Amino acid sequence: MTAFPDSHADLREKLVFWHVATKGPDGSIHSSPVWGGFDGDHFRFSLTTGRQKYRNLTADPTIAVSGTDPENPYRYVELRGRVARIDPDPDNAFIDSMAKKYMGVDAYPWHQPGDQRVVVVVEVDHTTQMG
Amino acid sequence: MTAFPDSHADLREKLVFWHVATKGPDGSIHSSPVWGGFDGDHFRFSLTTGRQKYRNLTADPTIAVSGTDPENPYRYVELRGRVARIDPDPDNAFIDSMAKKYMGVDAYPWHQPGDQRVVVVVEVDHTTQMG
Repeated sequence: MTAFPDSHADLREKLVFWHVATKGPDGSIHSSPVWGGFDGDHFRFSLTTGRQKYRNLTADPTIAVSGTDPENPYRYVELRGRVARIDPDPDNAFIDSMAKKYMGVDAYPWHQPGDQRVVVVVEVDHTTQMG
Repeated sequence: MTAFPDSHADLREKLVFWHVATKGPDGSIHSSPVWGGFDGDHFRFSLTTGRQKYRNLTADPTIAVSGTDPENPYRYVELRGRVARIDPDPDNAFIDSMAKKYMGVDAYPWHQPGDQRVVVVVEVDHTTQMG
């Protein structure tokens, strides 16, 4: 487990759109932006179980996450690691906390009936940073 | 070869910081932001040959690239594919064109003596987009 770099600690709370990269079943790489939060040194983000990214990560936990400072795109952090666990989010508590952080609202506004939410908890093995 | 989505064509010219994901020699995934440009439907970005990303891509051409609209982070494009070729950039013409695009200057200001620049040309097999 590697600690988040102190020099970039402000990015933990800033409204960073974190680009999450996973491996697809055919050996491809997938990358897309997500909201993210931290629990100690674990990076956490929300998924629905219907997403390709969920299937990718349950098949192969390898992951990389990179994000730039919204105020200075030349400042960034990369987190490399693997999924430590995938927690259920039955009451949408985690996705609602992300909606609070990023949108300032109490409840995630785009919830769809039938969506099953989980919290992906990432253990970081390596970080790089710039700026 | 897949075309860049028309709905997001403006992102080709906007100052998007593209997050490029590659595979490391140990099976890890690496992700970091880069400047990027387009030549038709090929995505192009600059590297020095000393970078880990260069070693990754010469060993395994699999790549994914994702970027958000700087004016609306809920609008994004993902490009999945592979490196079609790596061209030399002996006169720094490509990196200078990127400095022009992103910084409005004629010459890349952070060139270091001894840096050997190349242009990574990505063939896109699949795109996803949102917003």
